[in-house]
Amino acid sequence: MTASPAAPPGYSIDAFHHGGFYVLQPEAEGHRAGLDAMLLAATVPAEATGTLADLGAGAGAAGLAVASRLEGMRIVLVERTPRMVECARMTIAHPLNARLAGRVRVIEADVTLRGGARSAAGLGDRAFDHVIMNPPFNSARDRTTPDELKAQAHAMETPDLFEEWLRTANAILKPGGQVSLIARPESLADILAGLERRFGGIEITPVCPRAGDDAIRILVTAVKGSRARLGLRDRIVIHEGTGRDFSPLANELANGRRDWPRRTRQSAQKRVE
Amino acid sequence: MTASPAAPPGYSIDAFHHGGFYVLQPEAEGHRAGLDAMLLAATVPAEATGTLADLGAGAGAAGLAVASRLEGMRIVLVERTPRMVECARMTIAHPLNARLAGRVRVIEADVTLRGGARSAAGLGDRAFDHVIMNPPFNSARDRTTPDELKAQAHAMETPDLFEEWLRTANAILKPGGQVSLIARPESLADILAGLERRFGGIEITPVCPRAGDDAIRILVTAVKGSRARLGLRDRIVIHEGTGRDFSPLANELANGRRDWPRRTRQSAQKRVE
Repeated sequence: MTASPAAPPGYSIDAFHHGGFYVLQPEAEGHRAGLDAMLLAATVPAEATGTLADLGAGAGAAGLAVASRLEGMRIVLVERTPRMVECARMTIAHPLNARLAGRVRVIEADVTLRGGARSAAGLGDRAFDHVIMNPPFNSARDRTTPDELKAQAHAMETPDLFEEWLRTANAILKPGGQVSLIARPESLADILAGLERRFGGIEITPVCPRAGDDAIRILVTAVKGSRARLGLRDRIVIHEGTGRDFSPLANELANGRRDWPRRTRQSAQKRVE
Repeated sequence: MTASPAAPPGYSIDAFHHGGFYVLQPEAEGHRAGLDAMLLAATVPAEATGTLADLGAGAGAAGLAVASRLEGMRIVLVERTPRMVECARMTIAHPLNARLAGRVRVIEADVTLRGGARSAAGLGDRAFDHVIMNPPFNSARDRTTPDELKAQAHAMETPDLFEEWLRTANAILKPGGQVSLIARPESLADILAGLERRFGGIEITPVCPRAGDDAIRILVTAVKGSRARLGLRDRIVIHEGTGRDFSPLANELANGRRDWPRRTRQSAQKRVE
């Protein structure tokens, strides 16, 4: 994070990728984009091309991280909360992000729209090469925040959240396109159920705070229409030792210095259209 | 493994737990009990008591490993293949297993029996404190073995295998009882679907050949009637470095020197009856 004089009142502006791009966020309010968004962005491989949809983009951190690392990609941020849509638009328009602005745009829409309403909102069927999503993953039973904007970003509003978001991901992806998500391990059953009969080649990477710890997140990728088997990869460890420093791998992923490609990269690239 | 003069013609007798118990198996035929069975047995914690059912027990290696480590437990081996039932009976009756024989018995039954037929076979409702299972996990698409007995042990005969086996596990467990299984990662969706609405507190431990490898097995435990969330634990690494030697942890687990208890041991022990 780098302090900047360029943040409007009520907003903070945070540097990512060592100043490769900047994200405007409501100050002291709402979900704060961070490592989750950077890990999610890393699942889009170095050779990716075409157009990516960032579903539930918030202020746009994950989508911008892809745009920053992959100069050939076009990014569509999809967000339904007006306040966060405004943030995303201010983020794109900010002079510090001038190098990315031409390839990133925002759609104000609910990810759970269906059929014609979804297409009319700008999310056409089979229009995207990649979809990334960081769905609101705090379940209602531990929703303790009094902060309404944060609650909207974190709360799992329906038991069918992953079903609905993955239905949209499937609809808007080209055949052979890749979906990526980051979530809590407790959502694993819902995620696998939502992927079923739509996606294959599921690859799960646990993310552990330290060696020996239980995973606090899972990174999941899958390929539309694939029939390949599920794989469970070795974990990413965030911290080495007992301090707050990132492990070398986590540091590279957090800063856009490397990708976290699928084991079976070819299947994600081979278009069956 | 220790060679022994006591094997009948056509059988081998293999030592486990450094000679703590022995398993008779058809020589050069059928599935060979090994590390999978020992890891599965390790999920029954040191403080466990009561009666355990080993579903699809084969020659009985996993069940006997529990009996050998936990002197207070009674074990019921459940197997449907007559040849393997015979093996299990010969194993129990073998003089080298005399110290265990009084606590281990065999039921010849299909795990997928239901209702009255299941009870009549000796698998009564709510009769068991623990259930362990190592279901036949090779899918039909890679069944290449010409060995019919091995095929029966390995083949996933129906797409509902985990559903059927976990239905039986749920029926025969006491409330609060623990189920444990070992399987391939590709079966994860089927396993979670089969556990749903029956078990909670699911804990998944990936098992990787070496650090950095994808998991080749998952150890899964869950508690009947629990509402606790799923947890994804750090992996067990089988081999250290590049050689064939087991890691210290894998060696201890393989030889009954330690257990692999749940993180939330109490919930498995707290009976809600």
